[in-house]
Amino acid sequence: MDRAAARAAMPRQLTPVGREEALRLLGSVSLGRIVFTHQALPAIRPVNHMLDGEDIVVRVQEGALLTAVAGATTASGAVVAYEADVIDPETHLGWSVVATGYARAITDGDELARVGVLLRPWVSDTMTCAVRVSPDLVTGFRLTARPVTLP
Amino acid sequence: MDRAAARAAMPRQLTPVGREEALRLLGSVSLGRIVFTHQALPAIRPVNHMLDGEDIVVRVQEGALLTAVAGATTASGAVVAYEADVIDPETHLGWSVVATGYARAITDGDELARVGVLLRPWVSDTMTCAVRVSPDLVTGFRLTARPVTLP
Repeated sequence: MDRAAARAAMPRQLTPVGREEALRLLGSVSLGRIVFTHQALPAIRPVNHMLDGEDIVVRVQEGALLTAVAGATTASGAVVAYEADVIDPETHLGWSVVATGYARAITDGDELARVGVLLRPWVSDTMTCAVRVSPDLVTGFRLTARPVTLP
Repeated sequence: MDRAAARAAMPRQLTPVGREEALRLLGSVSLGRIVFTHQALPAIRPVNHMLDGEDIVVRVQEGALLTAVAGATTASGAVVAYEADVIDPETHLGWSVVATGYARAITDGDELARVGVLLRPWVSDTMTCAVRVSPDLVTGFRLTARPVTLP
């Protein structure tokens, strides 16, 4: 058995993580994916984020995406899921967190300026917009190596 | 300016990739995220995949997820999005691909056995199910460093 196959065959265990730990994991990275419904179809975009208290603030590149994500026509916003993970491509060990809640466009100039300096743009010279996601449900798991029990 | 800030300020360019190149990129990794609608809400799960021709075959851990993803009650399946990316957490350079299409549960025993040996399970001792996604729409982008033009 080669090294990759041995790693693949390694016993693993999936452990759920609670809300607090899941948000801490989410805040430990700056890349994630926003999942939304666009023209009645499931849609996803990689974006970068920061945590602002328990809210996830996401930088979106284009106004069209902002409208698609936050449903600019409805004051209450639209429900989205936000996912981030750190998973080893070889062993598949790591974690994944999904937060689900309402997304609202950040329209206040002062607030946009405050989050703008903390959120790094993907393409440096592109004007960006931001969305605030207030997560109602936060779930996550860790996939860890399980100690091998000898017979 | 420290190294991280210098990297962050690096000029970048976003280049769309065509269907063929996007599928090639998708096939170059084994981890991705399946995006579906569950109880009228956007949902996402990290999974592993393989390409079977132009189809994306995804291993799902639980029957409940299979039903949620592929809509077992409808013969035609359900529309899902499938995303994979390789993005540098520091520079944000890399690529992302999203494929959208119908997902159908793989129910044929021979087909399940054939894809089962090629798809690595996440948790080694868990019985798994598989879903075939036939992508109608495949989009993607590369984010690359842009050569700096001297004045």
